[in-house]
Amino acid sequence: MNSFGRLFRVHIFGESHGPALGVVIDGCPPGLPFSTEDCLPDLRRRMPGAAGTTARREPDLPEIQSGVYRGGTTGAPICLRIVNEDARSGDYEIFQDIPRPGHADFAAGLKYCGFNDPRGGGMFSGRLTAGLVAAGVLAKKIIAPASVEARLAEAGGREDAEAEAARAAAEGDSCGGIVTCRAEGVPAGLGEPFFDSLESLLSHLIFSIPGIKGIEFGEGFAAARMRGSVFNDALADSGGATVTNHCGGVSGGIANGNPLVFRTAVRPTASIGRAQTAWNVRSNAPCVLRVPGRHDACFALRVPVIVEAATAIVLADLLLLNETGKIAPKYSPEGDSHDPAR
Amino acid sequence: MNSFGRLFRVHIFGESHGPALGVVIDGCPPGLPFSTEDCLPDLRRRMPGAAGTTARREPDLPEIQSGVYRGGTTGAPICLRIVNEDARSGDYEIFQDIPRPGHADFAAGLKYCGFNDPRGGGMFSGRLTAGLVAAGVLAKKIIAPASVEARLAEAGGREDAEAEAARAAAEGDSCGGIVTCRAEGVPAGLGEPFFDSLESLLSHLIFSIPGIKGIEFGEGFAAARMRGSVFNDALADSGGATVTNHCGGVSGGIANGNPLVFRTAVRPTASIGRAQTAWNVRSNAPCVLRVPGRHDACFALRVPVIVEAATAIVLADLLLLNETGKIAPKYSPEGDSHDPAR
Amino acid sequence: MNSFGRLFRVHIFGESHGPALGVVIDGCPPGLPFSTEDCLPDLRRRMPGAAGTTARREPDLPEIQSGVYRGGTTGAPICLRIVNEDARSGDYEIFQDIPRPGHADFAAGLKYCGFNDPRGGGMFSGRLTAGLVAAGVLAKKIIAPASVEARLAEAGGREDAEAEAARAAAEGDSCGGIVTCRAEGVPAGLGEPFFDSLESLLSHLIFSIPGIKGIEFGEGFAAARMRGSVFNDALADSGGATVTNHCGGVSGGIANGNPLVFRTAVRPTASIGRAQTAWNVRSNAPCVLRVPGRHDACFALRVPVIVEAATAIVLADLLLLNETGKIAPKYSPEGDSHDPAR
Amino acid sequence: MNSFGRLFRVHIFGESHGPALGVVIDGCPPGLPFSTEDCLPDLRRRMPGAAGTTARREPDLPEIQSGVYRGGTTGAPICLRIVNEDARSGDYEIFQDIPRPGHADFAAGLKYCGFNDPRGGGMFSGRLTAGLVAAGVLAKKIIAPASVEARLAEAGGREDAEAEAARAAAEGDSCGGIVTCRAEGVPAGLGEPFFDSLESLLSHLIFSIPGIKGIEFGEGFAAARMRGSVFNDALADSGGATVTNHCGGVSGGIANGNPLVFRTAVRPTASIGRAQTAWNVRSNAPCVLRVPGRHDACFALRVPVIVEAATAIVLADLLLLNETGKIAPKYSPEGDSHDPAR
Repeated sequence: MNSFGRLFRVHIFGESHGPALGVVIDGCPPGLPFSTEDCLPDLRRRMPGAAGTTARREPDLPEIQSGVYRGGTTGAPICLRIVNEDARSGDYEIFQDIPRPGHADFAAGLKYCGFNDPRGGGMFSGRLTAGLVAAGVLAKKIIAPASVEARLAEAGGREDAEAEAARAAAEGDSCGGIVTCRAEGVPAGLGEPFFDSLESLLSHLIFSIPGIKGIEFGEGFAAARMRGSVFNDALADSGGATVTNHCGGVSGGIANGNPLVFRTAVRPTASIGRAQTAWNVRSNAPCVLRVPGRHDACFALRVPVIVEAATAIVLADLLLLNETGKIAPKYSPEGDSHDPAR
Repeated sequence: MNSFGRLFRVHIFGESHGPALGVVIDGCPPGLPFSTEDCLPDLRRRMPGAAGTTARREPDLPEIQSGVYRGGTTGAPICLRIVNEDARSGDYEIFQDIPRPGHADFAAGLKYCGFNDPRGGGMFSGRLTAGLVAAGVLAKKIIAPASVEARLAEAGGREDAEAEAARAAAEGDSCGGIVTCRAEGVPAGLGEPFFDSLESLLSHLIFSIPGIKGIEFGEGFAAARMRGSVFNDALADSGGATVTNHCGGVSGGIANGNPLVFRTAVRPTASIGRAQTAWNVRSNAPCVLRVPGRHDACFALRVPVIVEAATAIVLADLLLLNETGKIAPKYSPEGDSHDPAR
Repeated sequence: MNSFGRLFRVHIFGESHGPALGVVIDGCPPGLPFSTEDCLPDLRRRMPGAAGTTARREPDLPEIQSGVYRGGTTGAPICLRIVNEDARSGDYEIFQDIPRPGHADFAAGLKYCGFNDPRGGGMFSGRLTAGLVAAGVLAKKIIAPASVEARLAEAGGREDAEAEAARAAAEGDSCGGIVTCRAEGVPAGLGEPFFDSLESLLSHLIFSIPGIKGIEFGEGFAAARMRGSVFNDALADSGGATVTNHCGGVSGGIANGNPLVFRTAVRPTASIGRAQTAWNVRSNAPCVLRVPGRHDACFALRVPVIVEAATAIVLADLLLLNETGKIAPKYSPEGDSHDPAR
Repeated sequence: MNSFGRLFRVHIFGESHGPALGVVIDGCPPGLPFSTEDCLPDLRRRMPGAAGTTARREPDLPEIQSGVYRGGTTGAPICLRIVNEDARSGDYEIFQDIPRPGHADFAAGLKYCGFNDPRGGGMFSGRLTAGLVAAGVLAKKIIAPASVEARLAEAGGREDAEAEAARAAAEGDSCGGIVTCRAEGVPAGLGEPFFDSLESLLSHLIFSIPGIKGIEFGEGFAAARMRGSVFNDALADSGGATVTNHCGGVSGGIANGNPLVFRTAVRPTASIGRAQTAWNVRSNAPCVLRVPGRHDACFALRVPVIVEAATAIVLADLLLLNETGKIAPKYSPEGDSHDPAR
């Protein structure tokens, strides 16, 4: 449910306007240098501030609760806690009667029989991703020297993403965007058939980020229109480098040693200031809603660092898992019919 | 690894040219009528036969090994076994020296230190999906009266998919395709924040199908170019029906009661008969490869029923999981300050 | 690793002398009344105070971080945090050179390559069980009206357990004890073949409690010396009540509706004040060690409430799981050959 | 449910009188020599034959369905199937009306709403352990050079176990027994706090074996009557060897490098030929039952090899898990305050 990973495990907790939110990171190897300060650069990238992002201001300073001793990880679970300070919860009462168009308000109310915390969207807030980003900081250390870099390629269909976000905000509206991600140095062999392909795990975690509606690896949807003779990536040497990288670094669900490349689509934020047609479920009648409160006009602006974290978490988990396969060689048969040529 | 699901659990086994392949389905409720014959319509849809599909002919008759008694499920694990009969393994020796462009040959050899079964692609064969389709037959029974329907919307960029597949085959080439899927009657509330959103679980399982390179829900990538005022789906009544369905039936990762709609991209098959530039990793030199053997020119033709099975499996698992939440009402507080209005 | 449960999931974090410890409880149904005060009676039972327990004094007030709104659970993960206040860490440096006899010091140092937090035993402290007890409070609410009661039956082989603990303490020594547990009202059918028998899950969680060295259900080891004609519990009515309860309420790994009864053995605390032969791994020579610091002479005194929590957690998880099986009846075949007689 | 293990995963399927039973073993490293013949010695030890064991004769030849190629494991799931041949199912109809005293008949019928396969006890048969023993053969290869040996120490309270079993059989009765297990060469560090202690995992799997009612490690229940000064095992050298082994090789839930030692109690078989008081749930009245059919008078005779398999499976899983911790050293901090002395 609120956990992800097999060996490098991340447990998320918190609600947008509750006392605190955070993450418990289990399975982190001991001896990794780690401090709160290590998290700040990535957490700052996730923080709002640009035109088109929410006016809510949270310091987002994670407090280490456990799992770190004398500046290094101990091997015990690492609990990071981030206190909610700038919450204004009065804004949200109305949405229990008038669910926001495009928002989880209605489905969540049904799912939790009305007991869910509606303030700030409760668990459905993008704010929960702060814990994911903090976990990503540790994951990035585990996968080093491999590296991950994501960026907002376009917003609202335009490449001048920040300007477009500002335009949407000025209109009392919101816009989506497309985030591209590239990881270099990913060891060949990461990913597990049949069900835990690298693409399966990445998409699983990426779709956990609020607002994601699509993902494609390498050529993605364009591949569906290509001939195999064009799409197939030919080996360029015996080390595994390929001439092209149409498959985005993943063959048969397994990293092939070339750069991992994917794109993901972020929908426009649901909460907008301009008037929308809505429905009052208490009075059972249509109405007009202008969503008050502080919201991102373009949450996509804040997504790249979250995508990086998600990618690093998946790679860290698979990297640890891959270690377990290395127990085999001591069993390679000698002098019998089994000849594993390579 | 080769398991999927929390409550309705599917374990896959088998290799393309090994003695048998199959699936163990755990967590299936007792008392569900089930027989081998129930699997045949969907397994036949997965079987080759059309122009553009492989010439290999397997009867694909699943044998029930356990979990069924007097025509009904017992609650014990259901093992279905499908014997491999028409395997011609001599065809595959060469790919250990000359990995097929676009294929998992190279990455798999590295991952398994050369011990993996190379015949027919081993575990990386589309043939493994027969077990998934069989499990899907049970899942469809569990989710009834909800229903799932997938179809091939285009192949090689053209809507006359079968003709395009035949053209690719005639060229000694292959082509990809786009499969659309729609599920009706999905109860609102399925899907679990934070990590097991409905989109997360579906994409996880869909990307397990060999050859999938992209997935998008509702408007998907197009949503990234839309304004929120256009994308947001307004409620049309107090039951949850929306005027539009741009989100594809999933809000905040949770089914909202409207039809579940997604599209997925299938890459062209890697193995093609026409000459490709390749690399001989034994002689460490470039070479030309014409892949012999029997392959699908358009595996996408066979994907719709697999996508249906994957979708039904995810929905069945979430449906069972949702039952556990219904234990709550006996605890709803009475006469105190907690007023879960709805 | 530091997680337990399939549906009612408990994640533990914290170290004995770190900033805080706690628990994240995932999968708790929404709508359960819950407050910090609810935890206090059980947490007080776990707290030291009696002769024979440690002099360390922690207020053990859990702070709710998430998952509770207006006095009720929301369905989101519940994070409970307990701050460490009365830690005196200087006491523990020596044990890295001279591992305590009978303690995890040596094995833990090896396992974590020396990076583990040695203060207060780090993760290996009985203090971690505070989180377990807090989770047990919620679990007890879920399983109601079923109830669990554990008590210390003997310490150091004597039934006047508190007096014996005081004697051991006065000797600068420690003693073990035997805790019995009885749960009434457990619904028949809890427990899952093949691997998740009720005894399997209970023993798994009970052996997580520091110091447990044995567990037996019903007649336990005595059953090994009995004839079947004596051991077998005969049904006394059609509802499932049995004349005797030699099996302790579990048949074939499944609760049979009679009281669940088991006993568990707690070893004497490792840290004792009197002189012991030890080994200095730095100087590679034998030595004499008197363990300084504050320790329980009889940790068993504090174990009953932890055993209750563990039992309630297992039962809550299985109770939620059992709900999922109830989806079946709608599929019971009508008018065909399948006749599930009962 | 019917799965066990985190990395070395075992999935059981089958019913006593169904077409076949077996096991899927996932996560086995590639390159391990393996053939059907490797399983025969252990499977023969599990087979009946001695006085006091059932007259049912099954050849128990496992057929490899997948995961093995040219005599070695491939890294893919290994499915082993054992066909049921000597089943006589007519014997079991009566137990739906008259549940056997001491048997799971009644609880299972309730749990599965009467849909479970009653023949031969269905999933609740000791026969299911054949798959466990086969999986144990692979696990023993993984843990080598560590070794596991279990034996029947007593039956019915007497050390001449086979004679006592024959006596019980002659009386139309059954008897229990005590199995001791010892593993040598277990690397220090296996076992995971907080919840997956070595004792937790072993007891979890051991209690899955039908008929187990107790387990104790090292001194076990006797430890509860000992002083710490007696119980504590003192280090004898810097390598971790201890002078005594009262803790049975497990400190703080972690293997300490000394022999792993535990004892487990097997109850007498429920099905006995002599007359027992029972209850007819159809006529709702007491009755007398003489259980027909072929049963073990002392199932404990067949348990040692199953206990060995369970132990090896747990150790193999933890051994693979331990590999993942070895990724750490590259991160050991240099030139800073963190000095992990050892």
